[in-house]
Parts: sequence; C-alpha cells; structure tokens
Amino acid sequence: MFRAWILLCLAPLLFGQGDEVRRLLKDSEDAWNRGDLAAFSSYYDDSPQTTFIGRDVTHGGPDAVLARYKRGYPTREAMGTLTFSEIDVRPLGADYALANGRFALKRTTQGGGDAAGRFTLVLRKTKDGWKIIHDHSS
Amino acid sequence: MFRAWILLCLAPLLFGQGDEVRRLLKDSEDAWNRGDLAAFSSYYDDSPQTTFIGRDVTHGGPDAVLARYKRGYPTREAMGTLTFSEIDVRPLGADYALANGRFALKRTTQGGGDAAGRFTLVLRKTKDGWKIIHDHSS
Repeated sequence: MFRAWILLCLAPLLFGQGDEVRRLLKDSEDAWNRGDLAAFSSYYDDSPQTTFIGRDVTHGGPDAVLARYKRGYPTREAMGTLTFSEIDVRPLGADYALANGRFALKRTTQGGGDAAGRFTLVLRKTKDGWKIIHDHSS
Repeated sequence: MFRAWILLCLAPLLFGQGDEVRRLLKDSEDAWNRGDLAAFSSYYDDSPQTTFIGRDVTHGGPDAVLARYKRGYPTREAMGTLTFSEIDVRPLGADYALANGRFALKRTTQGGGDAAGRFTLVLRKTKDGWKIIHDHSS
C-alpha cells in the first residue's frame, strides 16, 4: 500500500523527466541547426568528470565539448542539418536519466556527405536543468 | 550539517557501488575468457527494456543478448581473450551506476584479428545484484 502510494507520488516526476529530456534534445537539435555550437555544448554538465566518447574520449564540460565540436565541424557545411529520431528516455531515479536514439546529419558532398549513428546520453538534474554527464556516440 | 551527515552516511554506499560494478566487470571478463557466453550474458537485466547498441540495436535480456553474442562470436577463436581497461564507474543515486571504459580482444588472424573499442554501461541494482540495463559499445 505504502509502496503503491510512493509510486503514485513519483509518477508525475518520472514521466516529467522524459518530457524534459526530450525537450532538451529538441532544443539542442535546434541549436545545431542554426549553427550555434556554443548553445549545443551548453547542455553538457560543467564538470571535469563529464565524458564524451566518440572516435576519441573528451573529458570536461561545455568548453571542452565546444572545442571538440569546432574541430570536428569547422564549417556550417560540415555541420549540415541534424535530426534525432527513435528517442528513448528512461528515468534513473529522480535525478538521473538515460536517453538513447539515432542521429542523422544531412550534408552536402563538400560538407562530408550524409552521416548517421546512435547516441547514448546520461543526464543529471541540476539547478540549471538537465545536463549531459556522459555521451557515447558512434 | 544535516547534509554533511547524509553524505557521510551515503559515502560507503556510493563507494561500494564502484567496487561492486568493478567486480561485475571482472567476473564478466572471466566468463568471456573461459568461453562462457551464457554467464557473460547473465549480467544483463532480464527485461524487454534492456538495450544493447553496437553495430545494430538489440532489445531484451540475457536470452536476446546471448543470441547476439553467439551470432557475433560463433567460435572460441572468434571470442579471443577479452580485457577491460581504463574503467570509470560513477554512482547515479543509490540504485543506478554508469560505467565506461575500453575493451580489447586479443585474437588470432583466423579469429578475426585483434579488436578494441569503448563501452558505456548503465546498471541497475536489483535483488540479484547489479544488472546492465543499457550497453553502448563501439
């Protein structure tokens, strides 16, 4: 009974997480598609513990992530148009969430051509909203 | 003061998580290296929500994961010798943990040759111990 009550009380919180994280993904997709790498990087947690695994491993918050993106996507054409899809968000207790899905970049041949893959994000709820503490993209 | 007390009380729990997850990784490495794919797969959470992202996406628990490994590693030679390294474990509250690191397969040419990459695991504390609810390996 008590357990049912706890679950009932937590339900809006847990369902809320999914919506909030999906909103973050939509906002970051929009930031990318207006060429705003600084805004895109601002969704990463400002901590030396933040990790980003791709072809190599980056440690650090928005500054480190921004530098990485600038290296990888030096021109607007190299950035292309980003679309996230097949998004799945799972709450991990009240303060963490796991999101995974597919990313696709629509690009000109000169920009590097179309590219696609899968991402895993682990996010933490902070006073400034949800922040990515770990990104694994491949 | 109260906050400090809470942190003090939680500290053994949080540090304990890291040790328990590292132990799981060591045990699963040992299972792989004795050719026991069923034991290796038993560390995945028995749920249709469990996800494994590699070259493709697998949904489901130990049975689905075992079938995937059997396809990918059909012989003892294809399995080779597995080593995990550069392991980092972060608690995500009391019931979840994030682990990432490097995997390396030492294999004969006939087995497919050496291979290496990075893994991200999200784990959940269950009554049967820590279980992997999400794996992203690349």
